[in-house]
Amino acid sequence: MKNIKNDAICSMTADFAQWYTDVCKKAELMDYSSLKGFIIYRPYGYAIWENIQNYLDKKFKETGHENVYMPMLIPESLLQKEKDHVEGFAPECAIVTRGGQNELEENLIIRPTSETLFCEHYAKIVNSYRDLPKKYNQWCSVLRWEKTTRPFLRGSEFLWQEGHTIHATEKEAREETINMLGVYRDMAKDLLALPSITGRKTEKEKFAGALETYTFEALMHDGKALQSGTSHYFGQGFAKAFDMKFLNSDNKLDYVHQTSWGVSTRLIGAIIMVHGDDNGLVLPPRVAPTQVVIIPIRQNVEGVLDKAYELEKTLKDAGIRVKVDNTDKSPGYKFAEAEVRGIPLRIEIGPKDIENNEFVLVKRLDGDKETFSMDIDLIKLINKKLDDVHEAMYAKALKHLNDNIHNVDTYDEFKEKIECGGFLKAPWCGKTECELKIKEDTAATTRCIVPDGHEHIQGKKCIYCGEDAKEEVYFARSY
Amino acid sequence: MKNIKNDAICSMTADFAQWYTDVCKKAELMDYSSLKGFIIYRPYGYAIWENIQNYLDKKFKETGHENVYMPMLIPESLLQKEKDHVEGFAPECAIVTRGGQNELEENLIIRPTSETLFCEHYAKIVNSYRDLPKKYNQWCSVLRWEKTTRPFLRGSEFLWQEGHTIHATEKEAREETINMLGVYRDMAKDLLALPSITGRKTEKEKFAGALETYTFEALMHDGKALQSGTSHYFGQGFAKAFDMKFLNSDNKLDYVHQTSWGVSTRLIGAIIMVHGDDNGLVLPPRVAPTQVVIIPIRQNVEGVLDKAYELEKTLKDAGIRVKVDNTDKSPGYKFAEAEVRGIPLRIEIGPKDIENNEFVLVKRLDGDKETFSMDIDLIKLINKKLDDVHEAMYAKALKHLNDNIHNVDTYDEFKEKIECGGFLKAPWCGKTECELKIKEDTAATTRCIVPDGHEHIQGKKCIYCGEDAKEEVYFARSY
Repeated sequence: MKNIKNDAICSMTADFAQWYTDVCKKAELMDYSSLKGFIIYRPYGYAIWENIQNYLDKKFKETGHENVYMPMLIPESLLQKEKDHVEGFAPECAIVTRGGQNELEENLIIRPTSETLFCEHYAKIVNSYRDLPKKYNQWCSVLRWEKTTRPFLRGSEFLWQEGHTIHATEKEAREETINMLGVYRDMAKDLLALPSITGRKTEKEKFAGALETYTFEALMHDGKALQSGTSHYFGQGFAKAFDMKFLNSDNKLDYVHQTSWGVSTRLIGAIIMVHGDDNGLVLPPRVAPTQVVIIPIRQNVEGVLDKAYELEKTLKDAGIRVKVDNTDKSPGYKFAEAEVRGIPLRIEIGPKDIENNEFVLVKRLDGDKETFSMDIDLIKLINKKLDDVHEAMYAKALKHLNDNIHNVDTYDEFKEKIECGGFLKAPWCGKTECELKIKEDTAATTRCIVPDGHEHIQGKKCIYCGEDAKEEVYFARSY
Repeated sequence: MKNIKNDAICSMTADFAQWYTDVCKKAELMDYSSLKGFIIYRPYGYAIWENIQNYLDKKFKETGHENVYMPMLIPESLLQKEKDHVEGFAPECAIVTRGGQNELEENLIIRPTSETLFCEHYAKIVNSYRDLPKKYNQWCSVLRWEKTTRPFLRGSEFLWQEGHTIHATEKEAREETINMLGVYRDMAKDLLALPSITGRKTEKEKFAGALETYTFEALMHDGKALQSGTSHYFGQGFAKAFDMKFLNSDNKLDYVHQTSWGVSTRLIGAIIMVHGDDNGLVLPPRVAPTQVVIIPIRQNVEGVLDKAYELEKTLKDAGIRVKVDNTDKSPGYKFAEAEVRGIPLRIEIGPKDIENNEFVLVKRLDGDKETFSMDIDLIKLINKKLDDVHEAMYAKALKHLNDNIHNVDTYDEFKEKIECGGFLKAPWCGKTECELKIKEDTAATTRCIVPDGHEHIQGKKCIYCGEDAKEEVYFARSY
């Protein structure tokens, strides 16, 4: 009875990829469109994204950022102004060649990212140090023509935010890069109950056109890493390519110092793969579109629905996202639906409960079931339970992360351990060649440089070539 | 001193079009990109749009709508499924022919509107009357390749929301069409202080593929009308083209009944052209990104900035959008900037004011200046003034609208009065031919059918052909 819907979900251990797709579909997060690589964000999936947007938009504004909107099309010549950048993106561009029934004189690229547009605009509007910093952000979708696509994780079109800032000094730009990575890491922890490792990307893995790329990486249930957001320090590279000069406080012309940073709907993929289970989604309470579902038992009995609506009103007025499932499905079907959708708390209430002046509260995370008196302070109880669930989910995910970080010193050990998934911390010589060989052998890539890695590598050798190690890096197989 | 910036704004009477462009630029609402027809929404302009979004998004959700996101690209074959629709949009499409360095097998259209995508999805997910209604909305940008473009009014890309709903009965769909028009009309009045006329479009002017289109039209300062939002009733036309069938409560297959409705960043153009003056923008308080600017006089004198921040904190904590202009510009320059930007209220505070335990409050709308004691209930005062300004702006715009609606019964009178701008209410035979001839002669088009027009046309003749009138219509020149 209980698993009417969940039956349709493949078990995680049987086939993780199939489980993932099943959850995406059965929880009604998305649907495929007829165009390969382009998904439809259904109401439930989009509502998760809206909650992420609301959280981040507030943080961005609190930290002095302003939203803007740039055109979705980039003239080909503009994209080509920064050499590394265009090389990185050209292979995956979608190109508009016709408009208004005419061939266009110049091809237009649907934005894969908007650095070039921001640069062109900044060059026009900034003259003096008094105009700096400019700290802009944009919410939009971008296009990158992908061969292999998976809902939320890799798509030809995805939703994201892209922050683009310019500063008078290198110091300020570097601080911005690190601060925004911090905003992301905190968001992951506080909103999504997602622990992560953070650090700088290697030369090979950094963003096209950046001097430095910082990343936060989460560990999925299957042991693979997911790059969940990045923050880039550009130095003055784009500034020189786009002639973004300003008069500094010493009255001398200088180039601006630049950053960009972004997270995308990929975060929804992370939520699914870190917290989900064989019954479907398990949503962290703070990002859940519905935090509490109230399921009436024998709802046709007089008083049951009224009581359900009464509880709903109490919670709704306190700002808790709650709804009564008053559809004409059976309670068992409703339980299963609420489970697939990962709603953190479920309240059950029937004629007998009302008679006893009580209700039943069930936690999605562990199925834990408790009975409470109707006389309890409901708002306080629910807020407490939501916080408890958040903390428990974070602790569980953090344990999984920590249990799956291993130090390795030899390549044999590396090849053995990488098969078990997780992050491998290993000494590395700093050469791209070794990264490429390791990837070829093991499908593992460097995820980031260990921030305090220098403390561990004295006297150690690169696991691949045996030369002196210059860095300690996290390796993992990844999405 | 006062008009440092405003000098750069052309006067309205001298050249309305130039005045409009000057305001857009000088108030820093937008900038041109290097691509013709594509503008950059700068922070101040985008913040106005965000306030419109926040208001509407809340209303949409309160009325049972859910947000989704559909792909930005539409396969050409999908767009072609509904004949009238594709005929309407094909001439202004932007077409992607290459992706990932390959020629595509099928051309992809950047969405000019998303009916076809919603239809395809709805056809997949709706089976039974239990699945209905579906009331979805999407916030996004759309592309329509335009030859003549003007910031916010007509662009090749613009930001909008598009609601798409399907229903089990014609009655419910018709109600939705009218209700959403009402949501728009109320938003215009309550948020933007914009009065409007509403009604049904003629056959010639309706949306490509709709059975009926309803519009709300505002009157600009120069006497031209602006179609500010539309709501469409589709009947079952798209439903048949896209096979959107469902099992109704009698267990019979039926086609769904459909609507769509949208408003765009065009509303920003309406705000500018209805409320603005020769000194720049005049923003309705409820949509203004900054409602109160506090300008310190002699801000280097000890205590002045502190007092300014104290007032700012009091207002900010009460949810009023306020900021202290603490830049190192002169007060006169700051006054002028606040004027160009149309900030509803300005507080001036200097050493002498502090000595006298008072501050000066200036209204942008009329330059009205009052001095208040610091002991006043500041929050109550400012909220009252913001409401007063809103009401005064609405009353002024309503007077302008009402003063410029004229009844005409003959074509001579029509041709004379149309030169003065405004809406002309005229009897009309109902034939597209007459509309076309009138447009050719006078550049005026039907804006909408007068809702209670039948009461006025008994015995009247079409102003153009002299045949019996079937409708009374509003004519106007328009944007």
